[in-house]
Amino acid sequence: MVVDARGPSIGPSVAEILASHASGTGSPTKTAARVADAVAARGEDGTWLSTVPREQLIAAAAEIENRPGARTLPLYGVPFGVKDSIDVAAVQTTLSCPDYAYTATATAPVVQRLLDAGALYVGKTNLDQFATGLNGTRTPYPVPRSVYGGDMISGGSSSGSALAVALGQVPFAVATDTAGSGRVPAALNGVIGFKPSRGLISTVGLVPACKSLDCISIMAGSIDDVDRVFDVAAGRDDADPWSRDRGPRRAATPPRVGLPPAHELEFFGDEQMRDAHLAFRDHLARTHDVVEVSLAPFLAAGELLYQGPWVAERLVEFADFLAEQPDSIHPVVREILQGGHRYTAVDAFAALHRMRELKVQVDRLWRSLDVLVVPTIGTTFTVDEVIAAPIDCNTTLGHYTHFGNLLDLLGVAIPLGITADGRPHSATLLGAALTDDTVLEFAAQLLDEPRAVPPTPSAVPTVVEEHA
Amino acid sequence: MVVDARGPSIGPSVAEILASHASGTGSPTKTAARVADAVAARGEDGTWLSTVPREQLIAAAAEIENRPGARTLPLYGVPFGVKDSIDVAAVQTTLSCPDYAYTATATAPVVQRLLDAGALYVGKTNLDQFATGLNGTRTPYPVPRSVYGGDMISGGSSSGSALAVALGQVPFAVATDTAGSGRVPAALNGVIGFKPSRGLISTVGLVPACKSLDCISIMAGSIDDVDRVFDVAAGRDDADPWSRDRGPRRAATPPRVGLPPAHELEFFGDEQMRDAHLAFRDHLARTHDVVEVSLAPFLAAGELLYQGPWVAERLVEFADFLAEQPDSIHPVVREILQGGHRYTAVDAFAALHRMRELKVQVDRLWRSLDVLVVPTIGTTFTVDEVIAAPIDCNTTLGHYTHFGNLLDLLGVAIPLGITADGRPHSATLLGAALTDDTVLEFAAQLLDEPRAVPPTPSAVPTVVEEHA
Repeated sequence: MVVDARGPSIGPSVAEILASHASGTGSPTKTAARVADAVAARGEDGTWLSTVPREQLIAAAAEIENRPGARTLPLYGVPFGVKDSIDVAAVQTTLSCPDYAYTATATAPVVQRLLDAGALYVGKTNLDQFATGLNGTRTPYPVPRSVYGGDMISGGSSSGSALAVALGQVPFAVATDTAGSGRVPAALNGVIGFKPSRGLISTVGLVPACKSLDCISIMAGSIDDVDRVFDVAAGRDDADPWSRDRGPRRAATPPRVGLPPAHELEFFGDEQMRDAHLAFRDHLARTHDVVEVSLAPFLAAGELLYQGPWVAERLVEFADFLAEQPDSIHPVVREILQGGHRYTAVDAFAALHRMRELKVQVDRLWRSLDVLVVPTIGTTFTVDEVIAAPIDCNTTLGHYTHFGNLLDLLGVAIPLGITADGRPHSATLLGAALTDDTVLEFAAQLLDEPRAVPPTPSAVPTVVEEHA
Repeated sequence: MVVDARGPSIGPSVAEILASHASGTGSPTKTAARVADAVAARGEDGTWLSTVPREQLIAAAAEIENRPGARTLPLYGVPFGVKDSIDVAAVQTTLSCPDYAYTATATAPVVQRLLDAGALYVGKTNLDQFATGLNGTRTPYPVPRSVYGGDMISGGSSSGSALAVALGQVPFAVATDTAGSGRVPAALNGVIGFKPSRGLISTVGLVPACKSLDCISIMAGSIDDVDRVFDVAAGRDDADPWSRDRGPRRAATPPRVGLPPAHELEFFGDEQMRDAHLAFRDHLARTHDVVEVSLAPFLAAGELLYQGPWVAERLVEFADFLAEQPDSIHPVVREILQGGHRYTAVDAFAALHRMRELKVQVDRLWRSLDVLVVPTIGTTFTVDEVIAAPIDCNTTLGHYTHFGNLLDLLGVAIPLGITADGRPHSATLLGAALTDDTVLEFAAQLLDEPRAVPPTPSAVPTVVEEHA
């Protein structure tokens, strides 16, 4: 399986950039100049909300070059973008809401770890306002479009993070994922969207959407790049109450692959997408032992997210701003947030009880499988389509992602080529919390990517207990 | 440390009853008759809400005697009581609310496991209505009094469960603990109240108070009895979403003992209680390595329970009944439940976030200690005192218990004798989730009780991660 080249034009990988910097054919300053030129060439296309000016970017690259021992750093001079809900000191954090924006006084630990590893911060990427939405259109800044053209949305909320990678401007970007924000834009732009197990990457310095569900995610062009970035970004942070240690650094190989029964799959009338996904499943079934797994408890959990009290969790952060400056908020986002006030604490506890029931149902499924494979999105939309029906399109886009964080899963969205009519086709590989290496290893296999560090085949505990 | 005999008159232990049944000096039918007589002798003292009639109880004992292999059963003919919020098939579950009462169609798994082990079900014990309260006075039935006299409350909500053991009628009773209901009445009646780690005993068949916090607890006269009952009662139940497996069956010996700084201890002006507890701490400090541990995060968590949205969790079960039959509810319980409607889903999520922060603070403390020792209650009250100020007295009684379930701790309240003026004095030993055997072993040491199965001294992992 190789990514079709018609959509994204993924630039040099992390490994290629490092090799270039090591060999002297390139350097961090040359890379900085190339990135600045590439970003400038696109103009105001809605990918970036702010970027480090060209001269400053080159100066920052020079500073990296001059660090003692810099050439041994794992991300020496590798450029990256940061979703604009994550703090970088002295830079505005806007959340795509100019009236909410503030200048950050500290750098989020995830960004700091990347900087300490020699990575080159390029700028802040666009997002659905307050990271609320999967559409990519809920921004007062230019609305980004998918690299696949046809006026297709870039997806959200990490719209710009996926685009910056798909355009080849940076090999990776730091994004977030609360209900699919790190997977849906990856699917729409033909890149990899990795939402690790919750808590492996610190969320300190991220303006929360749903604090109990938020994850930092990674957009990249290859699993190797994901691995390199994840190894740097992941780490225990006592200041993040959801922080936890990474699971075993080994994969269950071959993984036991779960597939939902075909009749449970929903493509919302998109036959081309159905054909593409079913062809991929056929390939899987020929090459792997697969078990059939019903999506019912997953979908039930997903429905609770936007049709239940979790929308109120966003108001823990945004209620004051909503009350004081409602007109500063994008109308669709405002309507969603206002809906959070409908729910009582009794509703919240009842939904938490129900979610607990669904979670233990799902936890039991992992006893018989390692990876569950679903479409990342069932269909695609144009910008006009989502503007005409923003809530319905969002629900459709989140069909296969909404449940992931609630059920404490990890997921990696991988590009699988295009449909017959030229739209991107992506699958998400889901796993139980802390089985990140199993899922990443399987993703690498499917993408015909050898992994730098081959995993040790071994019996991995696959049932991850919930001790809450 | 030996329990002072002036208060409770603990009857024969489980081991003594089994020995008597094995030797033929006694038998289940003789035990049944003795129990029926003892219960009848006390009359309507508020201990029991219903009991199996004498002849039926003897017939049930005879049925146990006639079971094939009955004599090898671990609780062969051992009588016990059940808090009246837990279902026993064909028996009324009242929750101390006659208008709410219903006849149960199934037996709760915890009770069934005891019955299957040969135990003899005696009846249902009194409780604060809807298991809401620590006072023991919120019942339309006779208000039970502590065995220590002086018109002292029995404590709640498991008022009758503690009394039935303290009166020597049964060697153990099944109770519950959501915020101290299994510890406070134990303290007021000079018995042991064991609240295991959440999920080790199934809560199926228990009418929930706060479903995410409810635990089945055990009242008994000795740690040996607790051990014997717990071994039977504990077990994974897939029908209970909070069910989990018991931790390692070994204890950290000697345990690292944590004590709060003396100035943080609150006895609400009760100098006799302070003197008794400080004397016990002096004994501990002489015989163990102790570390000082601030109670601040524990108390902050406890304050969130009744001064926060968790009261709304009770309405998941009781909102309909409250709306339809408010006059059927005890006035104090009604007022508390109505208060739950004040909270929004935003309040609930904000409190859950705060609790998460406190929980990780507390989790980190367990890296340097195994058991935290606190008073079970800071002072005692008479029935008239709590009737005059039901909410304030309840808050006082819960000072050292409210936080336990929220922080996913286990606790065992142990009797330590009496104060200079003859009131019961109890300490609670708290541990991180799943370290039940460490805490029980320490309790046995403090009570000079050899345990039947000596634990294997070993390095026990003491930090229990929260993976929620």
